[in-house]
Amino acid sequence: MVFKNEDIYSAALVIIGNEILAGRTHDTNTPWIAERLTDYGIVLGEVRVISDVEEEIIFSVNELRKKFDYVFTTGGIGPTHDDITAESIAKAFGKELVRDERASQMLEEHYGIEELTPPRAKMSLIPMGAKLIPNPVTAAPGFIIENVYVMAGVPRIMQAMFDHLLGMIKAGKPILSNTVACNLSESTVATDLTVLQEQYPDVQLGSYPHYRGGVLGLSLVLRATNKKNLENATERLIEIIKEHGDEPRALSIRST
Amino acid sequence: MVFKNEDIYSAALVIIGNEILAGRTHDTNTPWIAERLTDYGIVLGEVRVISDVEEEIIFSVNELRKKFDYVFTTGGIGPTHDDITAESIAKAFGKELVRDERASQMLEEHYGIEELTPPRAKMSLIPMGAKLIPNPVTAAPGFIIENVYVMAGVPRIMQAMFDHLLGMIKAGKPILSNTVACNLSESTVATDLTVLQEQYPDVQLGSYPHYRGGVLGLSLVLRATNKKNLENATERLIEIIKEHGDEPRALSIRST
Repeated sequence: MVFKNEDIYSAALVIIGNEILAGRTHDTNTPWIAERLTDYGIVLGEVRVISDVEEEIIFSVNELRKKFDYVFTTGGIGPTHDDITAESIAKAFGKELVRDERASQMLEEHYGIEELTPPRAKMSLIPMGAKLIPNPVTAAPGFIIENVYVMAGVPRIMQAMFDHLLGMIKAGKPILSNTVACNLSESTVATDLTVLQEQYPDVQLGSYPHYRGGVLGLSLVLRATNKKNLENATERLIEIIKEHGDEPRALSIRST
Repeated sequence: MVFKNEDIYSAALVIIGNEILAGRTHDTNTPWIAERLTDYGIVLGEVRVISDVEEEIIFSVNELRKKFDYVFTTGGIGPTHDDITAESIAKAFGKELVRDERASQMLEEHYGIEELTPPRAKMSLIPMGAKLIPNPVTAAPGFIIENVYVMAGVPRIMQAMFDHLLGMIKAGKPILSNTVACNLSESTVATDLTVLQEQYPDVQLGSYPHYRGGVLGLSLVLRATNKKNLENATERLIEIIKEHGDEPRALSIRST
């Protein structure tokens, strides 16, 4: 379920490039962004990893920007042949891709005017009317066009851009979460969890079985913006686990 | 770019559930599946991580099954209130969700007839006409309907299901890859890479900057099904790096 909640905003993340699709790189941007958004009352509703193919970028960005309050993209804003994000996003919005004077200046300051080769100058091409996102690491900026936020894919650069953005976007109420782990099987607590979810419709209750050291365990995650409801639902969940003869094994309460 | 290649098949992966969207769990299924597919000549073209919301599952599965040769889904086939994948996929195909006799038997053998509680029995509900994917770990099966392969989300169970599947699906030519790393900046080699990509249109050439130990480096990844073309393109790439005064730092050649 998604939150039935008017205190929060929604976001989608589009990861552009073949690096993760080829299996050679583990995606660390999603958990990092998801966690930051949580603190700002923005729930990540969808992540797409797509190829650096123009039609794919246009299609996904246009589909998601209508559906979510915010769309963040990562990757494809560098100087090489496979960096086609700026051009594709310009087309998604029916805007021209133009040399941005402020971006040129940022790149010139970083590389020096003599070293501003054509591949580097390419990084100053931005959709007409977009706002820039500064890049304190390698100068080439990201940009904002309507509700779409275009960032670099390299985690260190993306993180610097993202932190800059968070001061600019409208935030909701922080999403609080509790995690309760136990050794019960999902099917043992399933009926009680259904009742608990019905009792607290504004608390998102997720049930995630996992293997640790060869043993099947269960993580139960509660998320809400209302602290009191979250605490009450968590208390009841702990009771349920005890009623089935187990002890909550780990308890991470982020709301207190 | 995607492969311009008729020797390979395409696949999408749909990860269903809030675990990864909430940022609490790192996705390990994508790299594992991507790597397996590579060996079987199937290129992963898109990954979507979506919420356990019926309309979201229906929408994504219907969109992707038209676009890709194979669609794999993970998650949401357990016994709890947030496990709605089977029901949603049945609706996506306009099929009825029915108790599957073979699935019931698998669950009965695992739990014993007395312990086949309603939440457990729920896991025998499968879209009409679907083929089962056995689950050697916790009995509850996945299923196949047309080109959609529905698996568990727990990595250990998913992996067992996936390996079972690979014997059943049509494979393409294995995708070979070489990785060459250097300390040059992307913009230094950008023009040469564009020429190289044009020379070898059936070799996918990706350029991925990264930070390791605070130093910006560059991984260049070549992928192809034609070994000779891959080797020639790799050789030329190594020359390019040397021409710019650097030595290839690491070289992982998977094709030889």
